[in-house]
Amino acid sequence: MKVNVKKGEPGKKNQADKAPGVKIIPLGGLDQIGMNITAIEYEDTIVVIDCGLAFPEEDMLGIDLVIPDVSYLKENAGKVKGLVVTHGHEDHIGAIPYVEKELSMPIYATKLTMGLIDNKLREHNLLNSVKRKVVRHGQTINLGSFRIEFIRSNHSIVDSSGLAIYTPAGILVHTGDFKVDFTPVFGETIDLQRYAELGKKGVLALMADSTNVERPGFTPSEKKVGRTFDILFSENKNSRLIIATFASNVDRVQQIINTADKYGRKVVIEGRSMVNVINTASELGFIQIPDNTLIGLEQMKNYPDEQIVLITTGSQGENMAALSRIAASIHNKISITPGDTVILSSSPIPGNEKAINRIINELEMKGAKVIFQDTHVSGHACQEELKLIYALTKPKYAIPVHGEYRHLKRHAELAMEMGVEKDHVVILNNGSVLELSDQQAKTVGHVTSQGILVDGLGVGDVGNIVLRDRQHLSQNGLIIVVVTLEKHSNLLVAGPDIVSRGFVYVRESENLMEECHDIAEEALNRCLEHKITDWGKIKTSIKDDLGEFLWRRTKRNPMILPIITEV
Amino acid sequence: MKVNVKKGEPGKKNQADKAPGVKIIPLGGLDQIGMNITAIEYEDTIVVIDCGLAFPEEDMLGIDLVIPDVSYLKENAGKVKGLVVTHGHEDHIGAIPYVEKELSMPIYATKLTMGLIDNKLREHNLLNSVKRKVVRHGQTINLGSFRIEFIRSNHSIVDSSGLAIYTPAGILVHTGDFKVDFTPVFGETIDLQRYAELGKKGVLALMADSTNVERPGFTPSEKKVGRTFDILFSENKNSRLIIATFASNVDRVQQIINTADKYGRKVVIEGRSMVNVINTASELGFIQIPDNTLIGLEQMKNYPDEQIVLITTGSQGENMAALSRIAASIHNKISITPGDTVILSSSPIPGNEKAINRIINELEMKGAKVIFQDTHVSGHACQEELKLIYALTKPKYAIPVHGEYRHLKRHAELAMEMGVEKDHVVILNNGSVLELSDQQAKTVGHVTSQGILVDGLGVGDVGNIVLRDRQHLSQNGLIIVVVTLEKHSNLLVAGPDIVSRGFVYVRESENLMEECHDIAEEALNRCLEHKITDWGKIKTSIKDDLGEFLWRRTKRNPMILPIITEV
Repeated sequence: MKVNVKKGEPGKKNQADKAPGVKIIPLGGLDQIGMNITAIEYEDTIVVIDCGLAFPEEDMLGIDLVIPDVSYLKENAGKVKGLVVTHGHEDHIGAIPYVEKELSMPIYATKLTMGLIDNKLREHNLLNSVKRKVVRHGQTINLGSFRIEFIRSNHSIVDSSGLAIYTPAGILVHTGDFKVDFTPVFGETIDLQRYAELGKKGVLALMADSTNVERPGFTPSEKKVGRTFDILFSENKNSRLIIATFASNVDRVQQIINTADKYGRKVVIEGRSMVNVINTASELGFIQIPDNTLIGLEQMKNYPDEQIVLITTGSQGENMAALSRIAASIHNKISITPGDTVILSSSPIPGNEKAINRIINELEMKGAKVIFQDTHVSGHACQEELKLIYALTKPKYAIPVHGEYRHLKRHAELAMEMGVEKDHVVILNNGSVLELSDQQAKTVGHVTSQGILVDGLGVGDVGNIVLRDRQHLSQNGLIIVVVTLEKHSNLLVAGPDIVSRGFVYVRESENLMEECHDIAEEALNRCLEHKITDWGKIKTSIKDDLGEFLWRRTKRNPMILPIITEV
Repeated sequence: MKVNVKKGEPGKKNQADKAPGVKIIPLGGLDQIGMNITAIEYEDTIVVIDCGLAFPEEDMLGIDLVIPDVSYLKENAGKVKGLVVTHGHEDHIGAIPYVEKELSMPIYATKLTMGLIDNKLREHNLLNSVKRKVVRHGQTINLGSFRIEFIRSNHSIVDSSGLAIYTPAGILVHTGDFKVDFTPVFGETIDLQRYAELGKKGVLALMADSTNVERPGFTPSEKKVGRTFDILFSENKNSRLIIATFASNVDRVQQIINTADKYGRKVVIEGRSMVNVINTASELGFIQIPDNTLIGLEQMKNYPDEQIVLITTGSQGENMAALSRIAASIHNKISITPGDTVILSSSPIPGNEKAINRIINELEMKGAKVIFQDTHVSGHACQEELKLIYALTKPKYAIPVHGEYRHLKRHAELAMEMGVEKDHVVILNNGSVLELSDQQAKTVGHVTSQGILVDGLGVGDVGNIVLRDRQHLSQNGLIIVVVTLEKHSNLLVAGPDIVSRGFVYVRESENLMEECHDIAEEALNRCLEHKITDWGKIKTSIKDDLGEFLWRRTKRNPMILPIITEV
């Protein structure tokens, strides 16, 4: 646990250590969901694991996404030997184009993962400038002082990997996002034998996925959802079926296609990200689509409803995704008719509940039946699966990754239950520099690690001050007071004029607006009478008087913005 | 179901109907959670059931609460005989002070419900001007053409009621919010016998609570949480216990106090609404506090941690509630120390998940153990309880109430399963006027029913335009362009000056701001050169040019506000 980590002075070498330790530096992914990125450093070698984005928190108004701050990597660019990527989800690959623009690193990943990375690089015109190498499970690559082995894994996207990182200080095992699926839809079960072999060799530290650590038991197999689809297709033979799921869940889509084929339905794919992922997965051989099953959106009208399955994005209630547009009747090609059955094959990511709620209500109001129970399984390991990985790898140190603090803490408790010594369980923060050797785990420093906000094309140009202003404006709107003064004489030549937005409906509040004008005028005249020429002081007077008046009258607190021009 | 309701022309009498029907007019509470209020009308009698508020939707930026529009009641003020209230939750009593200011109605409610209403009226200085009558369960009151009987019920607040409304057109049964608790903490089980007797007499329509209709089975008894508390107290004997729950859940608080008493702990109550409700409940005899159990916040320091239970508000992550302040270390009297155990005795109301998450993380980071599983039971009936009420009352018509459309629809299906004819199940909208008689159910009109937004002291002065501006400002901020022109000559004498808020961090974007200035100046000069004197046209030119430039450069869309003054 955190309290038990010995803290050393940054930069100062501990004389007792003979061999230097390997450094583990999470630049994201801790105390948060998303933005996974970790640097592993040993002398002149740095290897980066994953490079994901996070979606904005509720108070990050107007922000599109959050990417990691890689200042530390830029400062040590000469050491960075490469980026190894565990799987193709946005929270593991989404920041790659942004980071590659700042810091060119060769990328190593399995086939589908690389296919999805390629799509991103292509969008940012980086495909020709970034070195990439496709790796197979079981294969090992050499990067500086490290050897890195890609281990077959299971997750809610196919072709995902765990990693064994052979460092001079010992073997690190990183699970990536994972679950244990004994009957996966595509490929094989996670390579438990290899984790066992590594455990026999001796694992210095295990970094394992904490997402589901609060859930007891074992996550069900993806195949379970296939059986549910079979039941739902057979129970809804006379309806058009619309199934919304995560675009990246290739196996889920495969199962829908298989069931459609069995029940003689044509499949239509809708939603930009769904089309992209399915195309890439299909090109690379990760999804098998029987001939004559897939039809275009335009052909849909040639088939009766009961011969159609529409697979779409928007299962999280995302505003502009296909399902939201269908539900709100603003999709230009698909509209709900009574009798449609809509299946949400997903569970709500915290924060999305109300948006999903709204869509369910809209769909049902239009006469659709919406099914959302038992139509999803998680892609993350529950407690028993995590224990299994601990039992196989028997790590000396446990470093929980991927999760908010509550998850990391629960994971730390689980590691101790599995026999890791209390002093050897380390909860890190983003930016912590942990030095790890056979002898000890020691936090030896801290590097920049706050997320960088992306708003439109702007990367990092929106910070706390801008967000605080947006927050203020969103809650109470603003009142602008425009005053024109004569240069030198400082005489009032125009104004004060009052303009407001987002405060009250002005046409119905003329009296209040007039009173605002009078209050501002009084404050201004008082300043001018006292020969105050400092614009800052004049603005403050207007702001204070008007603010106090409005609070008394309305119990509201709009942003007040006095603007003085001179002629 | 909705499609099966015969629609008549508003106002036009159907000649076939001998006796007029009773009108049911929901003014809130349908297609939404909260703001429950329904008018029942027959000739010259209107009785109002409940008068609640709703909490603002996510897109209602800056809004504090939403109250019903009672224009219809004001237009028919002469007919309104009274307000009957089923229980003391905010979504059933919260709008009373606002509505009583517009429309004075006598209020009828049971003792605790009235106690809580009195608190509200007192805050609004209305206690002396509003007539109130406390009613006992089993008692019947006469209001115009109606007799109204208060029926004992169970819910997550004590002293709650169902209603039987005897009208000339037949008996209406309204469950209020309810569950069936065979072992309630205070009082007795819901009066199932009375519901059965009413069923024997013949119930024209049942209006029942739809909140939990998606959940199969039977909601567990409140006593179950008491057993959990017993286990948690015995397992955490060495910790200070902090338990957050709903202020209004008097039985929950009673159980915490009982358990504290059993384990020899002192109880501290914290949070304004918690203190208010417990005081009222205690004065009226709805909560029993053993002598010497309750201590003040200031006395807490005189006892060791393991002898303290702190009961607090904030279980929904509400920003300013006690638990949020404690978690964020901004509470002036209570701070978390490692070893504290915090129990969230609640489940998240949809939309609050992320706020609750944040609090759990903050508490755990400070060393507290947070327990949130199996510490709550719902106050609403699940499917089997609803079926029980249908089996007892055997209504001719079913009118699902209290729920979003998805709930009303699922409830309609349940009513049909329970034998109500398809044509007799009516899903209403807020504002629908349903006329109901033994012969038929007919929508005969529609009245105003949109919620009214309350922001600070302003009631109804914030509407869609203001909200749209707040939304726009929150996402992209604003850019103000100030221009001073000379009267008559229309010559530019000052500006354009550019001021921005919530757009970019200006100090780091000087170039962009300069370019904005140049673009605005060009647009302005073009107008002035073409002798355009219409300020509207000048503003539009500046707005268009600047908007297009910024979108191209930043892919952002700030509010652009040109302001012209003349001297």
